[in-house]
Amino acid sequence: MRVTGFGVIDHDARQLIYIGSGCVRTSEGTLPYRLKLILNNLREIITHYRPDQVAVEQVFVNVNPKSTLLLGQARGAAICAAVLHDLVVSEYSALQIKQAVVGNGHAQKAQVQTMVMQILNLASSPSKDAADALACAICHAHGGAGLGSISTMGLRMKRGRLV
Amino acid sequence: MRVTGFGVIDHDARQLIYIGSGCVRTSEGTLPYRLKLILNNLREIITHYRPDQVAVEQVFVNVNPKSTLLLGQARGAAICAAVLHDLVVSEYSALQIKQAVVGNGHAQKAQVQTMVMQILNLASSPSKDAADALACAICHAHGGAGLGSISTMGLRMKRGRLV
Repeated sequence: MRVTGFGVIDHDARQLIYIGSGCVRTSEGTLPYRLKLILNNLREIITHYRPDQVAVEQVFVNVNPKSTLLLGQARGAAICAAVLHDLVVSEYSALQIKQAVVGNGHAQKAQVQTMVMQILNLASSPSKDAADALACAICHAHGGAGLGSISTMGLRMKRGRLV
Repeated sequence: MRVTGFGVIDHDARQLIYIGSGCVRTSEGTLPYRLKLILNNLREIITHYRPDQVAVEQVFVNVNPKSTLLLGQARGAAICAAVLHDLVVSEYSALQIKQAVVGNGHAQKAQVQTMVMQILNLASSPSKDAADALACAICHAHGGAGLGSISTMGLRMKRGRLV
Protein backbone atom coordinates (compact mmCIF):
# COMPACT_ATOMS: atom_id res chain seq x y z
CA MET A 1 0.00 0.00 0.00
CA ARG A 2 1.33 3.41 -0.95
CA VAL A 3 -0.49 6.62 -0.11
CA THR A 4 -0.33 10.01 -1.79
CA GLY A 5 -1.89 12.70 0.38
CA PHE A 6 -3.17 15.89 -1.22
CA GLY A 7 -4.46 19.12 0.24
CA VAL A 8 -5.64 22.29 -1.48
CA ILE A 9 -5.73 25.76 0.09
CA ASP A 10 -6.47 29.24 -1.25
CA HIS A 11 -4.29 32.01 0.10
CA ASP A 12 -3.72 35.71 -0.25
CA ALA A 13 -1.70 38.20 1.80
CA ARG A 14 -4.20 37.98 4.68
CA GLN A 15 -5.47 34.46 5.07
CA LEU A 16 -5.34 30.77 4.23
CA ILE A 17 -8.57 28.98 3.33
CA TYR A 18 -9.05 25.22 3.33
CA ILE A 19 -10.48 23.98 0.02
CA GLY A 20 -10.14 20.22 0.12
CA SER A 21 -7.91 17.27 0.94
CA GLY A 22 -7.71 13.51 0.81
CA CYS A 23 -5.51 10.74 -0.44
CA VAL A 24 -4.94 8.39 -3.33
CA ARG A 25 -4.20 4.79 -2.34
CA THR A 26 -2.49 2.28 -4.57
CA SER A 27 -2.03 -1.28 -3.50
CA GLU A 28 -2.46 -4.15 -5.93
CA GLY A 29 -1.41 -4.54 -9.53
CA THR A 30 1.71 -4.17 -11.64
CA LEU A 31 3.98 -1.16 -11.30
CA PRO A 32 2.74 0.49 -14.54
CA TYR A 33 -0.86 -0.04 -13.40
CA ARG A 34 -0.19 1.57 -10.01
CA LEU A 35 1.63 4.52 -11.61
CA LYS A 36 -1.33 4.95 -13.97
CA LEU A 37 -3.68 5.05 -10.95
CA ILE A 38 -1.60 7.77 -9.26
CA LEU A 39 -1.31 9.76 -12.50
CA ASN A 40 -4.99 9.55 -13.43
CA ASN A 41 -6.38 10.07 -9.93
CA LEU A 42 -4.21 13.13 -9.37
CA ARG A 43 -5.13 14.49 -12.80
CA GLU A 44 -8.81 14.18 -11.86
CA ILE A 45 -8.16 15.89 -8.52
CA ILE A 46 -6.28 18.72 -10.29
CA THR A 47 -9.11 19.08 -12.82
CA HIS A 48 -11.59 19.24 -9.95
CA TYR A 49 -9.78 21.72 -7.68
CA ARG A 50 -7.89 23.66 -10.38
CA PRO A 51 -4.92 24.71 -8.20
CA ASP A 52 -2.55 27.38 -9.58
CA GLN A 53 0.58 25.65 -8.31
CA VAL A 54 1.80 22.52 -6.59
CA ALA A 55 4.11 21.99 -3.61
CA VAL A 56 5.60 18.53 -3.02
CA GLU A 57 7.31 17.26 0.08
CA GLN A 58 10.84 16.03 -0.50
CA VAL A 59 11.56 12.49 0.65
CA PHE A 60 14.18 10.87 2.78
CA VAL A 61 16.23 8.23 1.06
CA ASN A 62 17.96 6.56 3.97
CA VAL A 63 16.06 3.28 3.86
CA ASN A 64 16.16 0.25 1.67
CA PRO A 65 16.92 0.90 -2.01
CA LYS A 66 14.00 -1.13 -3.40
CA SER A 67 11.57 0.96 -1.40
CA THR A 68 13.36 4.15 -2.50
CA LEU A 69 13.05 3.14 -6.17
CA LEU A 70 9.32 2.44 -5.77
CA LEU A 71 8.76 5.71 -3.95
CA GLY A 72 10.74 7.55 -6.63
CA GLN A 73 8.59 6.07 -9.38
CA ALA A 74 5.38 7.01 -7.56
CA ARG A 75 6.74 10.51 -6.96
CA GLY A 76 7.67 10.79 -10.64
CA ALA A 77 4.07 9.93 -11.59
CA ALA A 78 2.66 12.49 -9.11
CA ILE A 79 4.90 15.27 -10.45
CA CYS A 80 3.93 14.26 -14.01
CA ALA A 81 0.25 14.79 -13.13
CA ALA A 82 1.12 18.37 -12.15
CA VAL A 83 3.33 19.18 -15.13
CA LEU A 84 0.70 17.74 -17.51
CA HIS A 85 -1.50 20.59 -16.28
CA ASP A 86 1.41 23.05 -16.75
CA LEU A 87 1.53 23.70 -13.01
CA VAL A 88 4.75 24.92 -11.44
CA VAL A 89 5.99 22.41 -8.87
CA SER A 90 8.02 23.45 -5.82
CA GLU A 91 9.73 21.10 -3.39
CA TYR A 92 10.09 21.49 0.37
CA SER A 93 11.92 19.34 2.90
CA ALA A 94 10.07 17.91 5.91
CA LEU A 95 12.21 20.22 8.06
CA GLN A 96 11.13 23.33 6.12
CA ILE A 97 7.48 22.25 6.34
CA LYS A 98 7.54 21.58 10.09
CA GLN A 99 9.41 24.85 10.62
CA ALA A 100 6.76 26.76 8.65
CA VAL A 101 3.75 25.08 10.26
CA VAL A 102 4.83 24.36 13.84
CA GLY A 103 7.82 26.70 14.17
CA ASN A 104 10.03 23.72 14.97
CA GLY A 105 11.77 21.67 12.26
CA HIS A 106 11.76 18.60 14.48
CA ALA A 107 8.08 18.72 15.53
CA GLN A 108 6.09 15.52 15.98
CA LYS A 109 3.47 14.34 13.48
CA ALA A 110 0.65 15.06 15.94
CA GLN A 111 1.82 18.66 16.36
CA VAL A 112 1.73 19.15 12.59
CA GLN A 113 -1.84 17.80 12.47
CA THR A 114 -2.94 20.08 15.31
CA MET A 115 -1.34 23.19 13.79
CA VAL A 116 -2.82 22.44 10.34
CA MET A 117 -6.26 22.28 12.01
CA GLN A 118 -5.69 25.59 13.80
CA ILE A 119 -4.16 27.44 10.84
CA LEU A 120 -6.95 26.37 8.49
CA ASN A 121 -9.66 26.65 11.13
CA LEU A 122 -10.84 23.07 10.66
CA ALA A 123 -13.50 21.58 12.90
CA SER A 124 -11.99 18.10 12.76
CA SER A 125 -8.57 16.67 12.08
CA PRO A 126 -7.79 15.62 8.51
CA SER A 127 -6.11 12.23 8.04
CA LYS A 128 -2.36 12.17 8.69
CA ASP A 129 -1.56 11.96 4.98
CA ALA A 130 -3.91 14.82 4.09
CA ALA A 131 -2.56 16.89 7.01
CA ASP A 132 1.01 16.43 5.76
CA ALA A 133 -0.04 17.51 2.28
CA LEU A 134 -1.89 20.55 3.66
CA ALA A 135 1.20 21.39 5.73
CA CYS A 136 3.26 21.34 2.55
CA ALA A 137 0.79 23.72 0.87
CA ILE A 138 0.86 26.02 3.93
CA CYS A 139 4.68 26.04 3.82
CA HIS A 140 4.54 27.09 0.17
CA ALA A 141 1.88 29.76 0.87
CA HIS A 142 4.11 31.29 3.56
CA GLY A 143 6.90 31.72 1.06
CA GLY A 144 5.00 33.71 -1.56
CA ALA A 145 3.56 37.20 -1.19
CA GLY A 146 1.41 37.06 -4.32
CA LEU A 147 -1.14 39.51 -5.64
CA GLY A 148 -4.71 38.39 -5.15
CA SER A 149 -5.72 34.88 -4.19
CA ILE A 150 -3.68 31.87 -5.24
CA SER A 151 -4.63 28.21 -4.92
CA THR A 152 -1.91 25.74 -3.95
CA MET A 153 -2.10 21.96 -3.88
CA GLY A 154 0.27 20.21 -1.50
CA LEU A 155 1.31 16.62 -2.23
CA ARG A 156 2.94 14.09 0.03
CA MET A 157 4.07 10.63 -1.01
CA LYS A 158 4.20 8.15 1.82
CA ARG A 159 6.59 5.26 1.70
CA GLY A 160 4.47 2.19 2.23
CA ARG A 161 4.96 -1.48 2.76
CA LEU A 162 6.25 -3.24 -0.33
CA VAL A 163 3.48 -5.33 -1.83
CA MET B 1 23.01 14.00 -17.22
CA ARG B 2 20.46 11.23 -17.40
CA VAL B 3 19.70 9.31 -20.58
CA THR B 4 16.59 7.42 -21.62
CA GLY B 5 17.27 5.18 -24.61
CA PHE B 6 14.40 4.10 -26.82
CA GLY B 7 14.16 1.62 -29.68
CA VAL B 8 11.18 0.55 -31.78
CA ILE B 9 10.88 -2.71 -33.69
CA ASP B 10 8.08 -4.38 -35.61
CA HIS B 11 7.81 -8.13 -35.20
CA ASP B 12 5.69 -11.05 -36.29
CA ALA B 13 6.19 -14.80 -36.02
CA ARG B 14 8.91 -14.73 -38.69
CA GLN B 15 11.01 -11.61 -38.33
CA LEU B 16 12.05 -8.52 -36.39
CA ILE B 17 12.29 -5.21 -38.26
CA TYR B 18 14.12 -2.13 -37.00
CA ILE B 19 11.90 0.96 -37.05
CA GLY B 20 13.80 3.61 -35.13
CA SER B 21 15.83 4.38 -32.02
CA GLY B 22 17.55 7.20 -30.16
CA CYS B 23 17.67 8.78 -26.75
CA VAL B 24 16.26 11.56 -24.63
CA ARG B 25 18.81 13.46 -22.59
CA THR B 26 18.02 15.55 -19.55
CA SER B 27 20.64 17.54 -17.77
CA GLU B 28 19.91 21.00 -16.39
CA GLY B 29 16.89 22.37 -14.59
CA THR B 30 14.73 21.51 -11.61
CA LEU B 31 13.45 17.99 -11.03
CA PRO B 32 9.88 18.79 -12.22
CA TYR B 33 11.33 20.43 -15.37
CA ARG B 34 13.46 17.37 -16.15
CA LEU B 35 10.55 14.98 -15.54
CA LYS B 36 8.42 17.13 -17.86
CA LEU B 37 11.14 16.87 -20.55
CA ILE B 38 11.20 13.06 -20.27
CA LEU B 39 7.40 12.84 -20.27
CA ASN B 40 6.85 15.19 -23.21
CA ASN B 41 9.73 13.91 -25.34
CA LEU B 42 8.64 10.30 -24.90
CA ARG B 43 5.03 11.22 -25.64
CA GLU B 44 6.18 12.83 -28.92
CA ILE B 45 8.25 9.74 -29.75
CA ILE B 46 5.25 7.48 -29.01
CA THR B 47 2.99 9.70 -31.15
CA HIS B 48 5.56 9.50 -33.96
CA TYR B 49 6.24 5.75 -33.90
CA ARG B 50 2.86 4.57 -32.58
CA PRO B 51 4.11 1.37 -30.89
CA ASP B 52 1.51 -1.18 -29.73
CA GLN B 53 3.29 -1.93 -26.47
CA VAL B 54 6.26 -0.92 -24.37
CA ALA B 55 9.01 -2.95 -22.69
CA VAL B 56 11.11 -1.32 -19.97
CA GLU B 57 14.36 -2.56 -18.54
CA GLN B 58 14.28 -3.10 -14.78
CA VAL B 59 16.97 -1.27 -12.82
CA PHE B 60 19.49 -2.25 -10.21
CA VAL B 61 19.15 -0.46 -6.93
CA ASN B 62 22.42 -1.35 -5.23
CA VAL B 63 24.01 2.09 -5.40
CA ASN B 64 23.55 5.33 -3.54
CA PRO B 65 19.97 6.09 -2.46
CA LYS B 66 19.87 9.66 -3.84
CA SER B 67 20.73 8.36 -7.28
CA THR B 68 18.14 5.56 -6.90
CA LEU B 69 15.43 8.09 -6.01
CA LEU B 70 16.29 10.26 -9.05
CA LEU B 71 16.34 7.25 -11.34
CA GLY B 72 13.00 6.11 -9.88
CA GLN B 73 11.40 9.47 -10.57
CA ALA B 74 12.71 9.50 -14.16
CA ARG B 75 11.48 5.94 -14.62
CA GLY B 76 8.09 6.91 -13.23
CA ALA B 77 7.85 9.71 -15.81
CA ALA B 78 8.84 7.37 -18.66
CA ILE B 79 6.22 4.78 -17.68
CA CYS B 80 3.64 7.59 -17.37
CA ALA B 81 4.35 8.58 -20.99
CA ALA B 82 3.43 5.02 -22.01
CA VAL B 83 0.32 4.67 -19.84
CA LEU B 84 -0.95 8.06 -21.04
CA HIS B 85 -1.13 6.43 -24.48
CA ASP B 86 -2.87 3.39 -22.94
CA LEU B 87 0.08 1.18 -23.84
CA VAL B 88 0.71 -2.01 -21.89
CA VAL B 89 4.12 -1.84 -20.20
CA SER B 90 6.18 -4.96 -19.48
CA GLU B 91 9.36 -5.09 -17.43
CA TYR B 92 12.44 -7.24 -18.02
CA SER B 93 15.60 -7.62 -15.98
CA ALA B 94 19.01 -6.99 -17.55
CA LEU B 95 19.67 -10.72 -17.12
CA GLN B 96 16.52 -11.67 -19.06
CA ILE B 97 17.41 -9.20 -21.82
CA LYS B 98 21.01 -10.38 -22.22
CA GLN B 99 19.81 -13.98 -22.15
CA ALA B 100 17.29 -13.27 -24.91
CA VAL B 101 19.65 -11.28 -27.13
CA VAL B 102 23.08 -12.83 -26.57
CA GLY B 103 22.09 -16.19 -25.05
CA ASN B 104 24.13 -15.37 -21.94
CA GLY B 105 22.69 -13.46 -19.00
CA HIS B 106 26.12 -12.13 -18.09
CA ALA B 107 27.15 -10.90 -21.56
CA GLN B 108 29.19 -7.73 -21.98
CA LYS B 109 27.66 -4.46 -23.24
CA ALA B 110 29.62 -4.73 -26.52
CA GLN B 111 28.19 -8.23 -27.17
CA VAL B 112 24.67 -6.86 -26.72
CA GLN B 113 25.36 -4.07 -29.22
CA THR B 114 26.80 -6.53 -31.75
CA MET B 115 23.89 -8.96 -31.42
CA VAL B 116 21.31 -6.16 -31.72
CA MET B 117 23.01 -5.12 -35.00
CA GLN B 118 22.95 -8.70 -36.30
CA ILE B 119 19.38 -9.53 -35.20
CA LEU B 120 17.97 -6.31 -36.68
CA ASN B 121 20.29 -6.39 -39.72
CA LEU B 122 21.67 -2.90 -39.07
CA ALA B 123 24.49 -1.46 -41.18
CA SER B 124 25.97 0.47 -38.27
CA SER B 125 25.88 0.21 -34.51
CA PRO B 126 23.23 2.19 -32.65
CA SER B 127 24.39 4.15 -29.60
CA LYS B 128 24.81 2.10 -26.42
CA ASP B 129 21.63 3.54 -24.89
CA ALA B 130 19.59 2.90 -28.04
CA ALA B 131 21.07 -0.61 -28.36
CA ASP B 132 20.03 -1.43 -24.78
CA ALA B 133 16.50 -0.19 -25.49
CA LEU B 134 16.33 -2.20 -28.72
CA ALA B 135 17.60 -5.26 -26.82
CA CYS B 136 14.75 -4.80 -24.36
CA ALA B 137 12.24 -4.65 -27.24
CA ILE B 138 13.80 -7.79 -28.81
CA CYS B 139 13.51 -9.60 -25.45
CA HIS B 140 9.83 -8.71 -25.31
CA ALA B 141 9.27 -9.76 -28.95
CA HIS B 142 10.79 -13.19 -28.22
CA GLY B 143 8.25 -13.74 -25.48
CA GLY B 144 5.10 -13.15 -27.51
CA ALA B 145 3.77 -15.25 -30.34
CA GLY B 146 1.18 -12.76 -31.58
CA LEU B 147 -1.02 -12.77 -34.63
CA GLY B 148 0.13 -10.40 -37.34
CA SER B 149 2.74 -7.71 -36.88
CA ILE B 150 3.19 -5.93 -33.55
CA SER B 151 5.26 -2.87 -32.84
CA THR B 152 7.19 -2.75 -29.56
CA MET B 153 9.08 0.18 -28.07
CA GLY B 154 11.90 -0.70 -25.69
CA LEU B 155 12.95 1.83 -23.04
CA ARG B 156 16.04 1.95 -20.93
CA MET B 157 16.76 4.50 -18.22
CA LYS B 158 20.44 5.03 -17.56
CA ARG B 159 21.62 6.11 -14.17
CA GLY B 160 23.71 9.21 -14.80
CA ARG B 161 25.90 11.51 -12.79
CA LEU B 162 23.95 13.56 -10.30
CA VAL B 163 23.76 17.15 -11.50
